Amino acid sequence: MRLVRIEHGGAPQWGQVEGDTVHLTRGMGGERKGETAPLAGVRLLAPAEPTKIVCVGRNYLDHIRELGNDQGDLPSEPGLFLKGPNALAEPGGTVDYPAWTHNFHYEGELALVMGRRARDLKPDNALDAVLGYTCGLDLTARDLQKTDLQWFRAKAADRFCPLGPWLETDLEPGDLRVQTRVNGETRQDGRTSHMIFDVVQILTYITRFVTLEPGDVVLTGTPEGVGPLQKGDTVEVEVAGVGVLTTHIR
Amino acid sequence: MRLVRIEHGGAPQWGQVEGDTVHLTRGMGGERKGETAPLAGVRLLAPAEPTKIVCVGRNYLDHIRELGNDQGDLPSEPGLFLKGPNALAEPGGTVDYPAWTHNFHYEGELALVMGRRARDLKPDNALDAVLGYTCGLDLTARDLQKTDLQWFRAKAADRFCPLGPWLETDLEPGDLRVQTRVNGETRQDGRTSHMIFDVVQILTYITRFVTLEPGDVVLTGTPEGVGPLQKGDTVEVEVAGVGVLTTHIR
Repeated sequence: MRLVRIEHGGAPQWGQVEGDTVHLTRGMGGERKGETAPLAGVRLLAPAEPTKIVCVGRNYLDHIRELGNDQGDLPSEPGLFLKGPNALAEPGGTVDYPAWTHNFHYEGELALVMGRRARDLKPDNALDAVLGYTCGLDLTARDLQKTDLQWFRAKAADRFCPLGPWLETDLEPGDLRVQTRVNGETRQDGRTSHMIFDVVQILTYITRFVTLEPGDVVLTGTPEGVGPLQKGDTVEVEVAGVGVLTTHIR
Repeated sequence: MRLVRIEHGGAPQWGQVEGDTVHLTRGMGGERKGETAPLAGVRLLAPAEPTKIVCVGRNYLDHIRELGNDQGDLPSEPGLFLKGPNALAEPGGTVDYPAWTHNFHYEGELALVMGRRARDLKPDNALDAVLGYTCGLDLTARDLQKTDLQWFRAKAADRFCPLGPWLETDLEPGDLRVQTRVNGETRQDGRTSHMIFDVVQILTYITRFVTLEPGDVVLTGTPEGVGPLQKGDTVEVEVAGVGVLTTHIR
């Protein structure tokens, strides 16, 4: 099923998409309320209500190599970092190129949104805690990532996490094609089967330390092919089986 | 004024303390509802409702030196990192010594809670956006801080941010004594006037990149004297003019 978060009647609402129609629901993943809206007439919002966004760094070997971070051994554990809810941006939205970076990079990723509270997930139930999958754009100030104490400005600034366009609930995340295009030109073209840590390993690892809440977002890492953006660029992240997340850089 | 967040009638409530009485209010920093509770009979909660907790690392020179991070120059900008709301723990609470660290440290700090949404604060209005001040304990897995890609497990695990016991709204944060005691023995004894970046500089800097929301927490950094905890320890963080935050390590 395809779940959208939309602006409707002046407030955010969740809904199920069926054909050209959005069936509004009682909250995220809830029952239908009996009210509908035409899909073409609604404004899509980022399909999540996170208390936090947990991200995996260095989860594809060829991406580790392209950044010169290959010290021979694969990471033995997922390398995690945080963005706050302030980082979300809606599908089709515009993100200003920050005045304080000179190397603003795209990183296209498979993202997932939690459906229930999760602590100490086990491999055989980890995916049951996921509500659905979507496309994430992990915007990164590459220059400051190298110089700052931690990846705060570089990763967690306002609108540094476009997400969407919707959640796909019936998806097997193990071998999905993830592509990023800039102005129509393919820059990243990977498969989630090339992750060093797969979605189950990521979720069981995170929840050893941190309780994930319903609506929380996990970004699963980016394949090789990252690179700089320019003002005026249009970035598309496409996850097979989900759709395309479009972001305009101004 | 002293503002508390308490458990009352099965739900979190905010209130103003007057003598031995809590006057319940409409939300954080709101008007009185006309309902009261005896202060002695209520359970105090962490006095914040954060969407994120922004922390300053390396903000006291002698603390930089004690960790061997002194490369001669003072930091030119605040070094920031994030915890999520999952990190909050209530005053008087118990935090389990995690099985996955062998060097679990206390860091006592002045904390502040935002009263309104804030972006691009200027020096002359930055403190107006603060609702009040309290004590924060930045619990840290020192061993993993050194080895992990980013400070995620080391800083942002569940209950790694005890906060409280209440907010003091009428406080000038520029020169407050901050002490940490373990089992009654003083381990940290600093003054906020020794910060490299003061509260105004921290707030104007953070809000260049990130929008702070009402209820968000900022931890302002720890003075020298950090050290390891053991199971069974009782940690007290005292900020002059606020009070004492007590945490039990189990």
